[in-house]
Amino acid sequence: MQSFDIDKSDLLRLKTALENSDAELQQVLQQYHTSEIAILFEKLQPEERERIIKILPAVEASEVISEMDEEHHPAELLINLDKEKRSEIVEELDYDDATDIISQLGESEQQEILDGIDQEDATNIRTLLTYQEDTAGGLMNTDLIKVNVNLTKNEALEEIIRQSEQMEEFYTLYGVNDIGELKGILSIKDIIKARRQVRVEELVNTDFVFVKADLDQEEVAKLISQYNLTSIPVVNDDMKLLGRITVDDIIDVMEEENTEDILKISGVSEDEELSGGWQDAVKSRLPWLVINLGTAFLAASVIRHFDATAAKLPVIAAYMTIIAGMGGNAATQALAVTVRRISLSDLTDKQAYNTVLKEFLVGMINGAANGVIVFIVALLYDANPKLGLALFLAMTGNLIVAGLTGATIPLILKRVGIDPAVASSIIITTFTDCIGFLLPLWLATKLLL
Amino acid sequence: MQSFDIDKSDLLRLKTALENSDAELQQVLQQYHTSEIAILFEKLQPEERERIIKILPAVEASEVISEMDEEHHPAELLINLDKEKRSEIVEELDYDDATDIISQLGESEQQEILDGIDQEDATNIRTLLTYQEDTAGGLMNTDLIKVNVNLTKNEALEEIIRQSEQMEEFYTLYGVNDIGELKGILSIKDIIKARRQVRVEELVNTDFVFVKADLDQEEVAKLISQYNLTSIPVVNDDMKLLGRITVDDIIDVMEEENTEDILKISGVSEDEELSGGWQDAVKSRLPWLVINLGTAFLAASVIRHFDATAAKLPVIAAYMTIIAGMGGNAATQALAVTVRRISLSDLTDKQAYNTVLKEFLVGMINGAANGVIVFIVALLYDANPKLGLALFLAMTGNLIVAGLTGATIPLILKRVGIDPAVASSIIITTFTDCIGFLLPLWLATKLLL
Repeated sequence: MQSFDIDKSDLLRLKTALENSDAELQQVLQQYHTSEIAILFEKLQPEERERIIKILPAVEASEVISEMDEEHHPAELLINLDKEKRSEIVEELDYDDATDIISQLGESEQQEILDGIDQEDATNIRTLLTYQEDTAGGLMNTDLIKVNVNLTKNEALEEIIRQSEQMEEFYTLYGVNDIGELKGILSIKDIIKARRQVRVEELVNTDFVFVKADLDQEEVAKLISQYNLTSIPVVNDDMKLLGRITVDDIIDVMEEENTEDILKISGVSEDEELSGGWQDAVKSRLPWLVINLGTAFLAASVIRHFDATAAKLPVIAAYMTIIAGMGGNAATQALAVTVRRISLSDLTDKQAYNTVLKEFLVGMINGAANGVIVFIVALLYDANPKLGLALFLAMTGNLIVAGLTGATIPLILKRVGIDPAVASSIIITTFTDCIGFLLPLWLATKLLL
Repeated sequence: MQSFDIDKSDLLRLKTALENSDAELQQVLQQYHTSEIAILFEKLQPEERERIIKILPAVEASEVISEMDEEHHPAELLINLDKEKRSEIVEELDYDDATDIISQLGESEQQEILDGIDQEDATNIRTLLTYQEDTAGGLMNTDLIKVNVNLTKNEALEEIIRQSEQMEEFYTLYGVNDIGELKGILSIKDIIKARRQVRVEELVNTDFVFVKADLDQEEVAKLISQYNLTSIPVVNDDMKLLGRITVDDIIDVMEEENTEDILKISGVSEDEELSGGWQDAVKSRLPWLVINLGTAFLAASVIRHFDATAAKLPVIAAYMTIIAGMGGNAATQALAVTVRRISLSDLTDKQAYNTVLKEFLVGMINGAANGVIVFIVALLYDANPKLGLALFLAMTGNLIVAGLTGATIPLILKRVGIDPAVASSIIITTFTDCIGFLLPLWLATKLLL
């Protein structure tokens, strides 16, 4: 019973225990909740994790493994265990967790694990393995309480107690008919309060939200968030109840999707593991950098067209980098606000139009404000008011371009069905670089030479 | 009963109904779940929202208002209603939702609303108003089921049914002693299954996670996510049960925190409303841009030191913008991965060291790869292998700097207690700009002149 915060002393304690006998290690482990062991687990070496899993009873070992991040390869940990322990652990896992972990393995290893466990469990897991990992089917758990709507109150209560024997939390109860079609949801409160003779049919709430097994997990998360649900039933095309998704799995989905958003908008492949090795990171980031190198050459070719201007006015080189860089920053701001807004809710045409208009205005005002500063610097430092005017206009112009591209490109991508977050700042800054070089060079040529 | 997706036709339908009589509008509204009306609400004008709230029965109106985003100002909507309707709606709201909304108003308006409602409700809301909005106390709901641990099974069951009369979902039951101290949590399943004479004391689970009222909401979200909880009790320093936070409120917190992360890393103030006006956006973004303008002058002053080099080798201007820009991109990548990693879990010293080492390696490899491309271009396009060599070295050097700053700065900020996301790409790129200009200019001067 504690408000919990793992700190260094806990890790040190566990590390020390790992140097000692099994009995001592066991004693230390007993003092932690399995969720706490799972957090400490992330800081350990693979062979240390293996030792702990071997020592823990199967129930607890399965809880720790189910909490492990995919990045730390729970599947490999499992496959390294001896056959008996492994089977015990897999049988203790919730079907959806077991499926997630087993799906990381090769076909023959999957076979090996499933052959070693209870055949009913194996069948359930095999079915779940057929769904895509990032869909409702891949998220759902088949472990749930379903009650035939033809039962009476007392029969239903008995049935619920029987089915809940092996479950920790059951959230919602589901009412199904004789052929397994979902008819409604039931609250335990209504069953308890009902009179004896009442049948489940009269108690179910038929106004419920459900999802099909192939729905994308991001859409499932949106529904659960919008309707404030604790769980949502998953059905097939014939309305047969397949499973349910609980809100704790959705929290993991949200974390995953948010990580992907931040990475994509920063020009990192969404598949990069945050704690992965350097090989992984190079593979994920180098392609974006090479694409950007191509666009950077494009922007730089603008400069080469104005060699004469640069030779006569060498100071322009320093100023144009400032204007291009500021454009990149303003575009990144507009992009972040627009991408996040789109990802939280769809925009109507009018809202999209207003967004672009707003970013145009913001770009103009911020551009003029920074333009005035640059004008003053050119006046005081270079004693050149014409240069100052050219720079003021260039800064304003480039920040307008920044606002427009930062808002328009993600909106267009969304309309054509591409994830707006791939309009990463890397892509957007190509525009602000090109315009940021072109405008000061061209305006300086016109006004000064 | 539907897997739900609001589209344009729904909005059009509602907009048309808004042109017509109250009866027709009522009929259209009846076809939507309150969560759906809340989504459509975001696309309407304030006066249209007001009309709908006036027409809806208080129960439904309160559900719609509680679902409204703070950005759409539910408090103003409420204050514009006539007194009677307003009181009805506030009384229907959950205490936590009512508190959130009322806290947006000025003191006299708060008073006016609270004076108009049931005094028990008002007292509860007044207590909640004393907690900071972004703490456990500000998030919690005081509506919960608590059972004295001295009751027998049957007494407890009666008590639960009595208390649950006005609640939709109760998630967890709480066992308290005579003076209101939290003793443990209870599952409805265990109560139903228990024998008659058993007392609650024997049924409560005393191994539970709780939080104090002043804990930051982000920490609450982490606990709920780590322990896979559906709700968490909130206590004061004497372990007296104050309320509980449910997982659906945490989903809103996670969305909020993730929005803040994306905005901050992109150099936007965390307070900017995504759908706010241009004034709001200028206020939130201009300060960052002006700070960056200062640092950009710093970077540009590097260029002015090499006026002689630029005059003799004008092509260097184009190349140095490429190298500085690529550094900015690589730094943004390293920053995004590191910030997201830190925000999901704390790193040990060893993990922090490995992160920096990894980013150094990634910077070197990506730098060398892009450096080779630039070398080849300088060779083919400018027929200048010495320039190519200088550019290769500069690109590699700058991407190493990018990796090191992108990883080190957020790690240092975290250690000194500053939010690592403020190490936004805007700040980090100052380094890569300075080094990105300095390296090619200095190396070209050394190798070529």
